Amino acid sequence: MALFSVTNPGDEVIVFEPLYANYNSYAAINLVQFVPIETMISNGFHLPKRNEIVKKITKKTKAILICTPNNPTGTVYTKEEMDMLVGIVKEYGLFLLSDEVYREFVYDEVKHVSLLSYMQEIPEQAIVLDSLSKRYSLCGARVGMLVSLNAQLMHGALRIAQGRLSSGLIDQIMAAKLTKVPDSYIAGVQKEYKKRRDVLYEGLKTIPGLIIPKPEGAFYTIIELPVDDAEDFATYLLTTFRDNNETVMAAPATGFYATSGKGKNEIRIAYVLNVESLKRSIEILKKALQSYTHG
Amino acid sequence: MALFSVTNPGDEVIVFEPLYANYNSYAAINLVQFVPIETMISNGFHLPKRNEIVKKITKKTKAILICTPNNPTGTVYTKEEMDMLVGIVKEYGLFLLSDEVYREFVYDEVKHVSLLSYMQEIPEQAIVLDSLSKRYSLCGARVGMLVSLNAQLMHGALRIAQGRLSSGLIDQIMAAKLTKVPDSYIAGVQKEYKKRRDVLYEGLKTIPGLIIPKPEGAFYTIIELPVDDAEDFATYLLTTFRDNNETVMAAPATGFYATSGKGKNEIRIAYVLNVESLKRSIEILKKALQSYTHG
Repeated sequence: MALFSVTNPGDEVIVFEPLYANYNSYAAINLVQFVPIETMISNGFHLPKRNEIVKKITKKTKAILICTPNNPTGTVYTKEEMDMLVGIVKEYGLFLLSDEVYREFVYDEVKHVSLLSYMQEIPEQAIVLDSLSKRYSLCGARVGMLVSLNAQLMHGALRIAQGRLSSGLIDQIMAAKLTKVPDSYIAGVQKEYKKRRDVLYEGLKTIPGLIIPKPEGAFYTIIELPVDDAEDFATYLLTTFRDNNETVMAAPATGFYATSGKGKNEIRIAYVLNVESLKRSIEILKKALQSYTHG
Repeated sequence: MALFSVTNPGDEVIVFEPLYANYNSYAAINLVQFVPIETMISNGFHLPKRNEIVKKITKKTKAILICTPNNPTGTVYTKEEMDMLVGIVKEYGLFLLSDEVYREFVYDEVKHVSLLSYMQEIPEQAIVLDSLSKRYSLCGARVGMLVSLNAQLMHGALRIAQGRLSSGLIDQIMAAKLTKVPDSYIAGVQKEYKKRRDVLYEGLKTIPGLIIPKPEGAFYTIIELPVDDAEDFATYLLTTFRDNNETVMAAPATGFYATSGKGKNEIRIAYVLNVESLKRSIEILKKALQSYTHG
């Protein structure tokens, strides 16, 4: 709905790849042309310099779309990065769409800088996208939020929403009660995910040949494997490899790139398992990589 | 999803007006060009002759979209009409989309002829659209169905559906249990709505100056009023007229036409009230019309 509200068919939206795979579907359905800018595993998928972004802006560019904390990379953009993006959209008159569904999932020294804190600075241009799915493990509720101070945009988005009549009724009633969930619930979730993130990161470091950015938020990370074709390795995990009759599943990263051919030796890991299962999964991944690369 | 699956931007879909207002939104969002063919209140909004339909077919026509039993007219297409439509799509190689969410809501001598009974005859072209909303008064569940034997089409529709990940989880679980609802439930609903339809139809006949087709199905009817501007009258009902501090609400029919300016002296009535409230509503409508037309 947000993409549809800010574009006409053929308009361009700047995105940073790797990116959430379904964005590609939304763009295709809305005839939006994504202009992908690559981010690099070597600096934890943080944003490139300002001029690398600005030079992609054309007359057709309507918006910049970000996701922070990021699915699939786990990257959380810094205050400097958010300042830079806000500066760009101010100068060029673009919308800035910030998907922040993992807002609470940040760990350690990292602080999430929400676009919500820039709403007064760019009231007509800031759009924050949010959801119940991750915060309350309520993916099955299908309730999301579009936050903007731009009255015309909200009017347009509402008309699109009304074409679909409503979200589920039970889900809306449930959603309205969630304001009563105490902050301690979120704190507990955060603590658990920080533990999982640490177990994953420390565990992956014991596997030779990987490139592993330290995940800053969300519950994903993209790592580089010492293989030519991560999709072939992912297939091998599911169809061939077994350790004590167990294996693991990983998402080949190519699906998270808008540019074909990129991310061929990368996988996305979702650390949504409990700590014991995570430890065992890392052990299996290690053995599978040995077996795959050394026959 | 069905419209998106069978068209490219700019393609044409033949529809019969008056039509369900939200179809216009779906068409706009998918850049589908509706080609409306008017149906007339004088013959209960039944279909025009074959050549009236065929002459609207162009190289861009991809489908014919119908709704039977019809929202907003209450019309149920006969076997002859369904045969004609199936014959046309066979000859011209079009898809036939049949929205049948009111399938069980047919009364008296009228029999619903579903496109489901033509699936073997036009397996690649027939698409039936259904929903839990009306059958089980479950509008808040947001669970619908797309039925087709065309494997390629179902594959495409599934990809669009996957872009939205899923329907609500609780709603899906609920939906799966509804096969256990006994037929007697539907029979009871039918009986109640037939009673309401009869009360409405007999009641409206006592109001002078109306044109009232006998509703055959669904729980709507479009009637013609002895006024120039039904929207002005509908506004009058809400803002000005009161009888014993009560009034009624009716939907101006212009919103159900794809062609601007049509249906100006028509309203849609939804007979979803209990019999006593319906009787009182007809009384109010009668008084309001008298008051509006004679000052």
